[in-house]
Amino acid sequence: MTQLPPNGLPRTGLVITGHPRAEDAVRDGLGAHGVATVHEAQGRTGLMVSSLSPIWRGARTSGTAVTVSVPPGDNWMIHVAVEQCRPGDFLVVAPTSPSDAGYFGELLATSLSARGVRGLVIDAGCRDVAELQAMGFPVWSRAISAEGTVKETLGSVNVPIVCGGRLVEPGDVVVADDDGVVVVRRADAAAVLEASRAREEREASLRERYAAGELGLDVNAMRERLQRKGLTYVGYDAWLTAMGR
Amino acid sequence: MTQLPPNGLPRTGLVITGHPRAEDAVRDGLGAHGVATVHEAQGRTGLMVSSLSPIWRGARTSGTAVTVSVPPGDNWMIHVAVEQCRPGDFLVVAPTSPSDAGYFGELLATSLSARGVRGLVIDAGCRDVAELQAMGFPVWSRAISAEGTVKETLGSVNVPIVCGGRLVEPGDVVVADDDGVVVVRRADAAAVLEASRAREEREASLRERYAAGELGLDVNAMRERLQRKGLTYVGYDAWLTAMGR
Amino acid sequence: MTQLPPNGLPRTGLVITGHPRAEDAVRDGLGAHGVATVHEAQGRTGLMVSSLSPIWRGARTSGTAVTVSVPPGDNWMIHVAVEQCRPGDFLVVAPTSPSDAGYFGELLATSLSARGVRGLVIDAGCRDVAELQAMGFPVWSRAISAEGTVKETLGSVNVPIVCGGRLVEPGDVVVADDDGVVVVRRADAAAVLEASRAREEREASLRERYAAGELGLDVNAMRERLQRKGLTYVGYDAWLTAMGR
Amino acid sequence: MTQLPPNGLPRTGLVITGHPRAEDAVRDGLGAHGVATVHEAQGRTGLMVSSLSPIWRGARTSGTAVTVSVPPGDNWMIHVAVEQCRPGDFLVVAPTSPSDAGYFGELLATSLSARGVRGLVIDAGCRDVAELQAMGFPVWSRAISAEGTVKETLGSVNVPIVCGGRLVEPGDVVVADDDGVVVVRRADAAAVLEASRAREEREASLRERYAAGELGLDVNAMRERLQRKGLTYVGYDAWLTAMGR
Amino acid sequence: MTQLPPNGLPRTGLVITGHPRAEDAVRDGLGAHGVATVHEAQGRTGLMVSSLSPIWRGARTSGTAVTVSVPPGDNWMIHVAVEQCRPGDFLVVAPTSPSDAGYFGELLATSLSARGVRGLVIDAGCRDVAELQAMGFPVWSRAISAEGTVKETLGSVNVPIVCGGRLVEPGDVVVADDDGVVVVRRADAAAVLEASRAREEREASLRERYAAGELGLDVNAMRERLQRKGLTYVGYDAWLTAMGR
Amino acid sequence: MTQLPPNGLPRTGLVITGHPRAEDAVRDGLGAHGVATVHEAQGRTGLMVSSLSPIWRGARTSGTAVTVSVPPGDNWMIHVAVEQCRPGDFLVVAPTSPSDAGYFGELLATSLSARGVRGLVIDAGCRDVAELQAMGFPVWSRAISAEGTVKETLGSVNVPIVCGGRLVEPGDVVVADDDGVVVVRRADAAAVLEASRAREEREASLRERYAAGELGLDVNAMRERLQRKGLTYVGYDAWLTAMGR
Repeated sequence: MTQLPPNGLPRTGLVITGHPRAEDAVRDGLGAHGVATVHEAQGRTGLMVSSLSPIWRGARTSGTAVTVSVPPGDNWMIHVAVEQCRPGDFLVVAPTSPSDAGYFGELLATSLSARGVRGLVIDAGCRDVAELQAMGFPVWSRAISAEGTVKETLGSVNVPIVCGGRLVEPGDVVVADDDGVVVVRRADAAAVLEASRAREEREASLRERYAAGELGLDVNAMRERLQRKGLTYVGYDAWLTAMGR
Repeated sequence: MTQLPPNGLPRTGLVITGHPRAEDAVRDGLGAHGVATVHEAQGRTGLMVSSLSPIWRGARTSGTAVTVSVPPGDNWMIHVAVEQCRPGDFLVVAPTSPSDAGYFGELLATSLSARGVRGLVIDAGCRDVAELQAMGFPVWSRAISAEGTVKETLGSVNVPIVCGGRLVEPGDVVVADDDGVVVVRRADAAAVLEASRAREEREASLRERYAAGELGLDVNAMRERLQRKGLTYVGYDAWLTAMGR
Repeated sequence: MTQLPPNGLPRTGLVITGHPRAEDAVRDGLGAHGVATVHEAQGRTGLMVSSLSPIWRGARTSGTAVTVSVPPGDNWMIHVAVEQCRPGDFLVVAPTSPSDAGYFGELLATSLSARGVRGLVIDAGCRDVAELQAMGFPVWSRAISAEGTVKETLGSVNVPIVCGGRLVEPGDVVVADDDGVVVVRRADAAAVLEASRAREEREASLRERYAAGELGLDVNAMRERLQRKGLTYVGYDAWLTAMGR
Repeated sequence: MTQLPPNGLPRTGLVITGHPRAEDAVRDGLGAHGVATVHEAQGRTGLMVSSLSPIWRGARTSGTAVTVSVPPGDNWMIHVAVEQCRPGDFLVVAPTSPSDAGYFGELLATSLSARGVRGLVIDAGCRDVAELQAMGFPVWSRAISAEGTVKETLGSVNVPIVCGGRLVEPGDVVVADDDGVVVVRRADAAAVLEASRAREEREASLRERYAAGELGLDVNAMRERLQRKGLTYVGYDAWLTAMGR
Repeated sequence: MTQLPPNGLPRTGLVITGHPRAEDAVRDGLGAHGVATVHEAQGRTGLMVSSLSPIWRGARTSGTAVTVSVPPGDNWMIHVAVEQCRPGDFLVVAPTSPSDAGYFGELLATSLSARGVRGLVIDAGCRDVAELQAMGFPVWSRAISAEGTVKETLGSVNVPIVCGGRLVEPGDVVVADDDGVVVVRRADAAAVLEASRAREEREASLRERYAAGELGLDVNAMRERLQRKGLTYVGYDAWLTAMGR
Repeated sequence: MTQLPPNGLPRTGLVITGHPRAEDAVRDGLGAHGVATVHEAQGRTGLMVSSLSPIWRGARTSGTAVTVSVPPGDNWMIHVAVEQCRPGDFLVVAPTSPSDAGYFGELLATSLSARGVRGLVIDAGCRDVAELQAMGFPVWSRAISAEGTVKETLGSVNVPIVCGGRLVEPGDVVVADDDGVVVVRRADAAAVLEASRAREEREASLRERYAAGELGLDVNAMRERLQRKGLTYVGYDAWLTAMGR
C-alpha cells in the first residue's frame, strides 16, 4: 500500500487522541428524543442509510462518536479504539471497502461496556447476536455473520469517516433507535436539541388532538390548499359511471 | 404533470367516496384464518410480494381496503384518506414510483386508531417503529426509514391501485400476519371464507394425525404415486459402492 | 428431464437409507457452543451464507443432517424425508434452482417434532412463522412466504447437497443459532468439539479480564506489533494543525 | 388448487380471444417517442419497475399487449398465447408468484417473430440471450437464467395482469427501450401520442438552445423563483471563513 | 486459524497436482452447445446461480476446471493456481467467505492466456474490465470492483469447491456463455455431450417449423392435454359480460 | 425544513462559487491511468461503491468535481450547478436521501457538453440512456429509470458531499471508467499521479514477462514465502488415498 505523507502524517495508522466531545447533557437530551425527531429537527440531514439496522429491537440511545476506519475483514483497530473511549461514547466503525464479516462480538462488547460505551454502529457485520442482546449492548449493523476477521493491517482511530453514507467526525453525537441512526455535528448539537424539544412539544399537542378524533386535514388546515391544487371528491357510483364500468 | 381528462375526471387528485365494503363478518372471519390459509383457499392468488413484511411480529388482522395512491416522497394524501376510513378498514398505500421514505409514523397511527382502522400496508417506508409497536398498531412495509416526506402534490384515494404487485380495489379484504399480506376481492370474500373454513378443518385433522406420529406419506397416500414416478430406495453402503467411494 | 444413469442409479428420485450419523454426545456438545465458536474452532470453514437467517430469534440447537434435494416450488420430497428422520436429526433442504416459495409450514413441523427432529435449514422460503414460533420449532430460511408449493416432481433424500453455499452430507452435524448456520463434517465432529471447548475456555478467561476493565491491547499483547507496523498517536490539536484546519 | 367459479368462468385456464387493440398508427407513433417521453406525456404513470431491463441494448419498440399469466416455473401458457398474437403485438408475461426461471428462449422467439410480434416483457427470467440478440428479438426481463421451466399447469391469456408493478390489459400499448417499459391504456393511447408529440417539439427547441450554450436557468426562467426560495451565492473564500476553515 | 489434520493433510494450503481432466474433444463439444442446452441435457443440474454473469457479452467457451479456494480479499492462491493450468483449462475461484473485492485483472489474465486458459468464473469481484474485453479474455463474476486484494493467507488449489452454489471438482467441464455457467462432472461429460447433440438436433427441426409459422401447440401436440386440464376459450365480449363490465 | 444558521449561512440553498480546481495536466494524467491504477496508487482509498456503474461501456475519463447536493426526487439544483461548470469539470450529484429516480437525461447532458463537462456520477438514477450513449456523454449511476423528478426544493452546489460512500469536495479529481469511480483529493492529485506512473511502469514490465510465459510465482519471488506459510503439494492419487476415496 503506497503511503502518501500529507502534511507529514501517515495516511493510515493514525490514532487521534483527546478530541473534544459534545456536552453530556446535550448528548443525553438528543438520545431521549429519538432518531425521527432529531433528524427532522436538524433539517432532515445526517440520517444513515436504512440498511444499517439494529441487531435487536427496543434500544434507544445516544453517544459521542469515537470513529474507527478499518480494512476489509480486519478488526484490529477496534481494539486500539477501545482505549480511546470514555463513558458516554459511541463507537462508529466503517471499513475502507465493503465487508459483511463479523467484526464485532461479545468479547469486544464486554470491553466497551466496562468503559461505559453506549453502543456501536458498524457499516459491516456483527456476531454473537444472542449474547449482545442478553448483555443489553445495542449494535446497528449492515449484516449478521459469524465470519471472523483477522488482525493484520492498520487503520485509523478518530479521523473523519463516512459511515452509512454520512460523514462522522469524532465527538459528534450519534442517536440510534429502532428507526435507524442519525449523526449530529458537535457544533450543532445544542441547537438541534433545542429544535427537537420544540418539535416534540408541537407533536405532543397534535397527538392529543388526533387521539381525540380530530383530523389532520383540520388540525393542519389543509383543506383549502388541497382544493386549490384541484382535489376532487366523487361519489362511488358517479365514478363507476365515468369509468364506463 | 400533464393532466389527461379521461371521461371528464382528472387522472390524479381524485377522492372516491362511499365505496361498498365486504361484510364485517366475512372480513373478520378471513382475518382469523390467516394469510397462508386464505391464500391457498382462493387458489393461490392475491399474495403480495414478500418484501412487504411486518415492522413488528405477532399481529394477525384483517380489514377492508381504503386505497391511497401517493407521489414519491409525499404523504399528503394519507391525511386525506384518513377522513374516508371507517372502523374495520385497512389502509393500503402505494407510491406511483418507488420510494423507501418514511411516509407513516406515530401521529398518523394515532389518528387511524381513533377511527378504528386495523392496520396499514405500504409499498414504501415507515418510521416510529418502537412507538407503533407500543401502540399495537400493525404495519407491513418495504422499508424502515426515519426519512420524512413532504406535502406538496396530490394523489388519489380509493381508486384501484397496485400494491406489493397485486391489484387492490377499495372495499376488498386485506388479511395480514407474520407471513405477509393477501388481498381478497370483495365479490369473492364470502366464498373464500367458506373455502378457508373447509381447508382449516382438513388441516386440523391432519395436524392431529401428524402429532400422533403418522407420516404424510401414509396420511396423503403418496407412496404409490411416488413409486410410479420411479422413487428408488438404496441402502447407504450400496450407494457408496455405486458411487465408487 | 433427461435421466443419466451413473453407475446404474437414477440421478434423481433417490432415497439413501441407513446412513451413519455423528455421535449423540458430540452433536449435542457442538450445539452448546454455538455457531461463532464452532466456526472458528474448525478453521473458519462450513459457515452457510448469511442470507439464511432464523425466522424467529432465540433458538440455539444442533442436529445430524438429513439432506433433501427438491425441485423449484415442489416440496413433495420433504414428506419422503420425514420417514428417514430419527430423534436428534436436523433437516437440510436445498432446491435445485432458486425458489423463495414457502416449502415448509406448521403441518410438516408437527410431523418432524413428533419424530424428534431439532430444526430445519432451507435455502428457500418458509411459512406459518407465528405458528412455528409458538411450537418452538426453529427454522433458518432465505425467505418468508405464504406461497405454497406443489407435489409433482421427484428429488432426492440423503444425497450430498449444496445448501447456503456449503456442501452437506447426511450425518454431518448442523449447528444453528441467531448468528446463522454452520456445518461440521461427521468425521471431524469430535475434533471440532474438542477445539470448541478449548476456544471457549480461553474466551471465558478473556471475558473476565475485559469485564474487569483490562484492554485487548494488553490482554493480547498487541502494542509492540502495532508499533512495529507504524501506528502513530497524535494529539487532536496537533492533528488539526497538520491538516491545515 | 381450489377453483372459485366467479360468474360461471374458471379463475385460471382462461384464454380470452378477439380483444380490441390500440390503432396501428397510434401504437407505432408512441414507439417512436420512447419510454421517457411517453411516461412524462401521460402524467408520469404506467412505468414498470426498473428491475425489468433489456437483455440487450439498442432496441426501441412498441406493440399492443397480449397478456399471459403463468404459474411459477411453468411456461406452458406462452405456447397457448402465441396463437393469439397478431403482427404488431407485444407479449407481456407475469408469473403468479415470483420466479427467475428462464421461461423464454430462442424457439419461442422464432415462433413469435414468424407471427410479427415486436417483443416481450416478462417479470421473470429469460435465456438464449446471445441468440435473441443475433435475431434482433428484444426482451425486457427481471433475470437471465438458463434454468428451464415445465409445462404442467394452466394459467390464463389476455386477462388483466400486473407486470412490473403495473396493471396491463390486453390491447394496451407497451413502449420499451433502454430506459425500461411503460404501458399506455388503450383508451388513452391517442391522447398520450398527442401529448408526446407536443412534449418532443418543446424538447427539440430546448435541445437546440442548450447546445448553443444557453443555460436552463435562463431558458426556463428559474432565477427569480430560486431567489425567492432563498438560494444564496457565496464566494469560496467567504465560505471557508464562515466554516472556520 | 485452527488446523485440523484430517488424514495427515493440512485442511488449507494444499495444492493437488496432476488431476485427470475430461477429454479435449468432449470439453470442446460441450462448449459448442452452450449453457442452456448442456444444462437441459444433463437433467437440469449443475447451473451456477445467475448472479454470476459475464463481465462482457458475446463469449461462449468451455474448459476443464482448475479450482481455487481463496480467503476473503486475498488472491495469492490464484498465482499458485496458474502454474497448475494447461491449455484448455478454465479457472474456477471461490472465496471461503463472501467478498466482492477485485481478485482478478489484466495481469493475471495475461499470464493465464499465455498458458492457454480459456476463461475464469469467480464467485467474487473482477477488475480491469475494459482491458479484459480488449484481450478477449472472458470472465463470469459476481461483481466488478477496482478494490484490490492482499497476498497474506493460504488457500488451496484443485480441492473440491462450491462456486456459484454448485460443487466443482478439478477436471470437471465448465461451459459458459451469456446465459451463465454450468458445470458437468468429468465422469458424465461424454454422456452429456451425446444428450446435448440429440437435443440440439431436435431443436433445429423445431426451429425450422416455428420459423415457417407452425405453432408450438401443434408441433408439440399440446392441444388435447390442455383441453383435458380444462383450458377454456372465451370471446372478449362474452368475457366482459361475465365479469359484469 | 428547519433551517439551522451555522456561522450565518443557510444550511441548504447554498452555491459556493469560484472554488479552486486541481491542475489540468494532473487531472488529465490521472484519467489516462484509469480507476484501478489510481485507486492502488493512492493507497486503496477513495473508491466509490461498486453499485455506481457506467450506463454504457467503454468510457475512461477524468474531471474536476462540481458537487451537487439534491433533495430526493428533485433535480432543480443540477440546473443551478451547470452555470458553475467549466471545461474539464465533472458533475458529482448525491441526493440527501436515497432515490432511484431519473434525475438526468439528454437535455442536461446537452447543456453540460456545451460547457465542456466530461461526465457525471450520480448516486441516484439516470434516463435517456440510448441518447446519452449516442452523444458519447458518460454517466455512472445507481439506477436507470425513466421516472422524472420535480423542481421544487433547494439543495446546494459545491459544498462537500458524500457520493457513493466517499467524501467529495469541489475541485477534487474524479476518475471513472468501466471499473467504477475513484476520487482524488485536490491536494493529493499531483502525488497520486506520480505514484500512478510508477505503478504503471512496473506493471508494463510485469505484463511483458507474463505474456512471455513467466509465472507470478517467480516474477514476484513468492515461492519461499508460500513454503514458509506451509503450502503443501500433493499428487492427485496420494490425495485420493488420504481422503479415503
